[in-house]
Amino acid sequence: MTEFLYGHWPVMEALRANRRPLEGLLLAERAEERGAIGEIVMMARARDVPVKRVPVGILDDLASTGNHQSTVLRAGPYPYVDVEAILHSATQRGEKPFILLLDLLKDPQNVGALMRVAEAVGIHGVIMQERRSVAVVPSVVSASSGAVEHLQVAQVTNLVSTMKDLKKEDIWMAGLDLGPNLLPINRTNLDMALGLVLGSEGEGMRRLVRETCDLLLTLPMRGRIASLNVATVGSIALYTAWQARDWQGWNAAADQRARD
Amino acid sequence: MTEFLYGHWPVMEALRANRRPLEGLLLAERAEERGAIGEIVMMARARDVPVKRVPVGILDDLASTGNHQSTVLRAGPYPYVDVEAILHSATQRGEKPFILLLDLLKDPQNVGALMRVAEAVGIHGVIMQERRSVAVVPSVVSASSGAVEHLQVAQVTNLVSTMKDLKKEDIWMAGLDLGPNLLPINRTNLDMALGLVLGSEGEGMRRLVRETCDLLLTLPMRGRIASLNVATVGSIALYTAWQARDWQGWNAAADQRARD
Repeated sequence: MTEFLYGHWPVMEALRANRRPLEGLLLAERAEERGAIGEIVMMARARDVPVKRVPVGILDDLASTGNHQSTVLRAGPYPYVDVEAILHSATQRGEKPFILLLDLLKDPQNVGALMRVAEAVGIHGVIMQERRSVAVVPSVVSASSGAVEHLQVAQVTNLVSTMKDLKKEDIWMAGLDLGPNLLPINRTNLDMALGLVLGSEGEGMRRLVRETCDLLLTLPMRGRIASLNVATVGSIALYTAWQARDWQGWNAAADQRARD
Repeated sequence: MTEFLYGHWPVMEALRANRRPLEGLLLAERAEERGAIGEIVMMARARDVPVKRVPVGILDDLASTGNHQSTVLRAGPYPYVDVEAILHSATQRGEKPFILLLDLLKDPQNVGALMRVAEAVGIHGVIMQERRSVAVVPSVVSASSGAVEHLQVAQVTNLVSTMKDLKKEDIWMAGLDLGPNLLPINRTNLDMALGLVLGSEGEGMRRLVRETCDLLLTLPMRGRIASLNVATVGSIALYTAWQARDWQGWNAAADQRARD
């Protein structure tokens, strides 16, 4: 199925990653080929992706509510991998597995934001329940700033049985949970083969998912609001776990980054 | 100046906090008074805020692009405080000052998300440069899920001179920065009187703001994207700093929370 990725970063990262069939780059009629768009056009040409000028109204339609920034990429479906590939890439990198598991998340913004942070901490892969959750649709790609194009993502039909399989591989399942008397996230040594499990917006983890976890952790809160967004909670948890690995894989001297 | 706050949480938290003049609650003609809306109406009546039914098109206009969820609150301007009030509330709570400083942030989503996390970690106040940054407008209130209604926020005309004043009070200014050879955020003891300084999207801190910092910290990253959103970076930094205070003020046993 053809998908329409939109926006500078998502389009650029899909071209860079070069994992999907790339069918064509659509540019707004009047967009100038400089800056980010210039770079995108160069990259498309280098990969023999046809470049076509179209009226901006067509891009508006293809990106629906998203901001296309004058660029839309016609591409094949998202290249999901299987769980074995995720474990394999941990082995290849000589690292203890570090996996993010998402149970029925619904909001593309949340999933995209989590994917972006997951990529930043060098996670080996993300495992998502296939039904009743958001898939890696173009709005997720956009919310991840294109990061998901570089990630290994597996969809599974039964998250609980995947968790059980991973436990047999000696990977600890740590669920982020809410409620009294839970262990704060920094009070466990997370420097181990780890699957971090996040539940859905509002509902949290399903009962069986929670019960399949080896340990339950919580992110403390004070203040009067007593609520945090799941993407915020997950981002902090991912960083806490990576910090426990002493920033494995970070090259401080070569650090050259941007942010928005 | 009258402002129009919109959405269940922002309206509810403005009513709960009760810090602004509350001029009237506008409800969509057909909205039923149950669930969140029921609670909002009860709270408005308890505070003698007039409740009025209006056609939903009026709410659409008042909330502009935001999702009003059938409720709009007409309220007075955001109740900014001065820097002294922020320091005073640290003293009152018997805690070392813990302050967030924002240098020219532009995106209401980022500022709102940061305010929400700042409230969750019990920060004593937020200090923002007055010109050329976003103020606490209704879209910030919404992005903060209403948290900013409970926070102490000061606007200052010269962030650098405020930083210098705070340094005289023995508050350390720690700036979050990008670039090679910076100290990762966990390699400093942040359990001290602390002002955490965040620069703007894209640009980072202005030169003078950076030079006025006592120390510069960075959030490590690996992966191919090499960019994180400033709200994500700031959220992780706020939690790192609160963790260094050993979750001061958190009541694990009474923890009752929701998230989205």
